[in-house]
Amino acid sequence: MSLPPYLLQVGLEASAHQLEVADTLIGVGRFLVIFVAARLLAELLVRLQLPTILGELIAGVIIGASGLHLIVPPETQAALSQSMLQLVGSLADVPPDAVAELYAESFPSLQAVADLGLFALLFLTGLESDLDELVAVGAQATTVAVAGVALPFALGTIGLMALFHVEVIPAVFAGASMTATSIGITASVFGELKMLRSREGQIVIGAAVLDDILGIVILAVVVSLAGGGSLELAPILKLVVAAVVFVLAAIGLSRTAAPGFDWLIDRLKAPGDVVVASFVVLTLCCFAATAIGLEAALGAFAAGLILSKSNHSHAIEAAIKPVVALFATIFFVLIGTGMDLSVLNPLDPANRAGLVVAGFLLVVSIVGKVAAGWCFLSPQPTDRLVVGLGMMPRGEVGLIFLGLGTQAHLLSPALEAAILLMVIGTTFLAPILLRLVLSGRTNGPDLDPLAEIPT
Amino acid sequence: MSLPPYLLQVGLEASAHQLEVADTLIGVGRFLVIFVAARLLAELLVRLQLPTILGELIAGVIIGASGLHLIVPPETQAALSQSMLQLVGSLADVPPDAVAELYAESFPSLQAVADLGLFALLFLTGLESDLDELVAVGAQATTVAVAGVALPFALGTIGLMALFHVEVIPAVFAGASMTATSIGITASVFGELKMLRSREGQIVIGAAVLDDILGIVILAVVVSLAGGGSLELAPILKLVVAAVVFVLAAIGLSRTAAPGFDWLIDRLKAPGDVVVASFVVLTLCCFAATAIGLEAALGAFAAGLILSKSNHSHAIEAAIKPVVALFATIFFVLIGTGMDLSVLNPLDPANRAGLVVAGFLLVVSIVGKVAAGWCFLSPQPTDRLVVGLGMMPRGEVGLIFLGLGTQAHLLSPALEAAILLMVIGTTFLAPILLRLVLSGRTNGPDLDPLAEIPT
Repeated sequence: MSLPPYLLQVGLEASAHQLEVADTLIGVGRFLVIFVAARLLAELLVRLQLPTILGELIAGVIIGASGLHLIVPPETQAALSQSMLQLVGSLADVPPDAVAELYAESFPSLQAVADLGLFALLFLTGLESDLDELVAVGAQATTVAVAGVALPFALGTIGLMALFHVEVIPAVFAGASMTATSIGITASVFGELKMLRSREGQIVIGAAVLDDILGIVILAVVVSLAGGGSLELAPILKLVVAAVVFVLAAIGLSRTAAPGFDWLIDRLKAPGDVVVASFVVLTLCCFAATAIGLEAALGAFAAGLILSKSNHSHAIEAAIKPVVALFATIFFVLIGTGMDLSVLNPLDPANRAGLVVAGFLLVVSIVGKVAAGWCFLSPQPTDRLVVGLGMMPRGEVGLIFLGLGTQAHLLSPALEAAILLMVIGTTFLAPILLRLVLSGRTNGPDLDPLAEIPT
Repeated sequence: MSLPPYLLQVGLEASAHQLEVADTLIGVGRFLVIFVAARLLAELLVRLQLPTILGELIAGVIIGASGLHLIVPPETQAALSQSMLQLVGSLADVPPDAVAELYAESFPSLQAVADLGLFALLFLTGLESDLDELVAVGAQATTVAVAGVALPFALGTIGLMALFHVEVIPAVFAGASMTATSIGITASVFGELKMLRSREGQIVIGAAVLDDILGIVILAVVVSLAGGGSLELAPILKLVVAAVVFVLAAIGLSRTAAPGFDWLIDRLKAPGDVVVASFVVLTLCCFAATAIGLEAALGAFAAGLILSKSNHSHAIEAAIKPVVALFATIFFVLIGTGMDLSVLNPLDPANRAGLVVAGFLLVVSIVGKVAAGWCFLSPQPTDRLVVGLGMMPRGEVGLIFLGLGTQAHLLSPALEAAILLMVIGTTFLAPILLRLVLSGRTNGPDLDPLAEIPT
């Protein structure tokens, strides 16, 4: 293994070899802690008949900034566990300060692996989607997405201004943060419940994808407002055009490109052909989506959709599932590590103002998304509550909004805490409520653990 | 996706959002370039009846510091392709300088994924090894390892001093760099040729593992010599004891731990149980190996060996193979990107001194390792040439020695170039010669591409 260049910048008395040992211990140790914690909690949650992703989020909270301080994303600015620093320091014969510095320097590597996990998960979601069903529910998904953006935004912004006398810009920002839907969490829950290919599943996935696109447009608007400048229409129009082109191209390629892919695969002979060729399509779509101003994750979903009609789709699925099981786990655990639950403590007087606002935001954020489930016409019977609950988790997208607002110094401490609580509440409640609703249905999915991901 | 903290340090006029776009384009684009190049070359090499790993190394040379400058490890200090910087810069609306800075800052993430690939490959190698055969050939493997270290070291050091009047310390260093065996390359070639479980394969794998352990001891000696200090015996004795304990513990656990693992797996219910549980064992062994001063990669091999007797070993293999196909590819491509082939050009007068020394080192490095194939007693017929050739590739281990020598300013430019050429020569020749020798045997393996890794 070659020496990462940042090792040489950590100027101190330890030798390069000792620093490399410490760096390896940190990198490998982080994986170990994440996998052990995620597995323990996932096993517990499965026994409680709850989705494993909830266990991964809780595992993150336990080992993260609110808990043991073993995995601490740099943006939380929480201190690392001293005993962990001392353990690694004594094993590698390096001072604990240097361990902390190496830890922070190498954290982006962990985030990169987590992003890879998110891409693989959305690729798998696209692969397991039914394109015809997705197009058939296109109108419904669009209405759900638009209503699920408009209702929480309007109710949240107006309510904050009217009831809590929040100023316009912070209120708009808080309203915007409530429009998000975490496609990663939604896809994971529906996938585990084997509901992805159901009518409700496809409406939710379609709406979550559109919500992600709408979210980027909203983000552009809010950021330009927050910058104090006037609203420029040209870049936003460009984004809208890019989004439309992207969706049309993805649907068009899904109908036409799979035979070409199969023709190529049948001519490949070197080992690992299917998985590497799929990853070429995946990275190409991620690159294209990013290049036109959309999220790379949307490209990953489109790549899966494009290959869903391939004759090799089962082989691709089998190859990609272990990658998802390993790396999407890291993604969800990292979301949990960044959540600071200390704002939840009502005994701390500093928290009380935030808690009241948070209660309001939480109610609006749940009602707004659940109501969106009733905002479409459907010729067939559709479980509207499942659709609404599916749109509920804000997850990592909500945290990104929060991070931007904090960076721009737009939010009061109380409003910051309230948004965080809204994100935590919707993210944790959605899998629980979905599971409860679905197990109440007579034709609910069978959560037989033995029928799960065959690894 | 959260913003990597280094983005905030890249101080310049571009907004955080633009930097994030550029960062994503770089990260995804690097994967894309690596996968496309590796796949093209692997397909070509398979059609020439040569191992795909050679294609991956050549792909790295083509896109790396000697070729298109698309993937440039920071330690090579080569300039990045200007057209690539401008493309990413114009797509993300960020100055090319900032792209170059982001590229360098985020390179450790790519190396981390590559290391994960090496660990997964060695884990798979351990998993596919036959413990009883490995123990049965233990004596032979030890003799091969020791002879394969002693012969190139003695011949190289004495030859450099006697024939080329090189001073003691540089000569010892060059000799030491010839003792390495790249267990990654050896494992990959034997795995693809389906020779891993043959008697020759197990001797080579066993010897390569021991060689890796001996290499760490030699490295410790050479580094303490190079530091100008006197040779301290205590840390080296500690390493030797750690190595012996490690080997005995790995063998002991391989005989006893698998039933415990199976008992646990049978009680796990959440999705992805087998692959995540295997990764827990893998990271635990990597952590333990690093903590006692050995290479993390050795821990990965031991983890595979421990799980090789598991009832779930086939499920683990199936889950780990896609991870290897994706990420070990990145590892081998990165080795190629770091090789500067310009020192090979005989038209440049500055290269000639190095080329003569290189010719000598290359001959010694081949003869020394091949001769090691005859340095053991065997009651059964064993193909000694295959064993010798299997020990030949220096690969990434040779490059690490070279990097340390360069950092310590121990080597003249000519000697530096000569060591690099020796590494390149043995790394590229070993797969070719092995393939030639094996296809000449009547009972050679059948290189049927359709029988390869089922992805």
